[in-house]
Amino acid sequence: MSRHPDTTHRREKERGGKDFKLACAILDDARIGHVGFTLQGFPYVVPMACARDGDQLLLHGSVASRLVKGLAGGLNCCVTVTHLDGIVLARSAFHSSMNYRSVMIFGQAERVQDPDLKQAGLDRLVEHLIPGRLRELRPSSRKELSATHLLSLPIRVFTTKVRTGPPSDPKPDLDLALWAGVVPLRQVPGPPEAAPDLRFDLPEPDYLSRL
Amino acid sequence: MSRHPDTTHRREKERGGKDFKLACAILDDARIGHVGFTLQGFPYVVPMACARDGDQLLLHGSVASRLVKGLAGGLNCCVTVTHLDGIVLARSAFHSSMNYRSVMIFGQAERVQDPDLKQAGLDRLVEHLIPGRLRELRPSSRKELSATHLLSLPIRVFTTKVRTGPPSDPKPDLDLALWAGVVPLRQVPGPPEAAPDLRFDLPEPDYLSRL
Repeated sequence: MSRHPDTTHRREKERGGKDFKLACAILDDARIGHVGFTLQGFPYVVPMACARDGDQLLLHGSVASRLVKGLAGGLNCCVTVTHLDGIVLARSAFHSSMNYRSVMIFGQAERVQDPDLKQAGLDRLVEHLIPGRLRELRPSSRKELSATHLLSLPIRVFTTKVRTGPPSDPKPDLDLALWAGVVPLRQVPGPPEAAPDLRFDLPEPDYLSRL
Repeated sequence: MSRHPDTTHRREKERGGKDFKLACAILDDARIGHVGFTLQGFPYVVPMACARDGDQLLLHGSVASRLVKGLAGGLNCCVTVTHLDGIVLARSAFHSSMNYRSVMIFGQAERVQDPDLKQAGLDRLVEHLIPGRLRELRPSSRKELSATHLLSLPIRVFTTKVRTGPPSDPKPDLDLALWAGVVPLRQVPGPPEAAPDLRFDLPEPDYLSRL
């Protein structure tokens, strides 16, 4: 068995790449990744919150989780982040497509054990998911920290895949009197919903508007 | 090796389930799934368009694709669909969470070979992704059809996981004067962008408003 997965783009080569900056940009737009791993011959794909820290992708989870234990034990994994940016309406089903940005990262995650690095990594996850929130939260207790594993996956073996722009129809299809184009898609936040157990008359934090 | 993956929910049992109707509802809201499989010991997770047809999940792709060939050959796979519905802001990092609906389907896909069933399945994918579009498209050519594999994965071994509602903070944290609640998230379409090679002065189709 080779040490690394095969990340060669065989088809649609123009869509594929190995650009670290692009991979980072795709990761930084993401709140969750889909984590794949194999247990007893079966593949599993599990959504997990994620955040990039330099050249590492951070994940976290309960020490009681089978998935987290497996990943912390060095299972081969693949974390894929995908943004669906639009539906591409070509003149035929065959040429219809989607606009998207995705990155697949391959490797083995490591458990971050140093208490300071672990705290910093967990803080990074909070700051990534809700920028501005961290300084308001009560600090985690020792018990909470020890109930959580922080995992770090190097962004070293990866591949990006991106499609942008209008449909690409073969010339004869351009004579068809049929609307063609792209319907862009994006994920947007709705109005914040205060917790029913809120005991104080608190305004919504300013940083929610940055989400 | 056992014939089926282990789909037991060990933790957060209240979030997990085996409800077929719920699984269908989650799938019907999805445009893409993340398809996991193992090749030469390495897990891969690839985003693919998907659509449900009764108790089958349909996927399609180029006959030239390594992934599609592998799946058509009966590789064990796991298709996970996830909707991120909100960010849950608790009073601590530890209890902060996300609202989501996800379903994992395990099994082996089959290649749909019967020409009529294949055409119907490919039509179903178009209708699912852009309801109303199908009747306007030019029919696929024989060459296009033979360049595409349609795959069908039974929705038989699956598990759903859902979190909804406000944060769930431990009682002592309710005394903290800190806003808590949920920021809902949803994917919305933007204004359609007509293809630059559109040769006719065509209005945007009505069905785009249904996306």
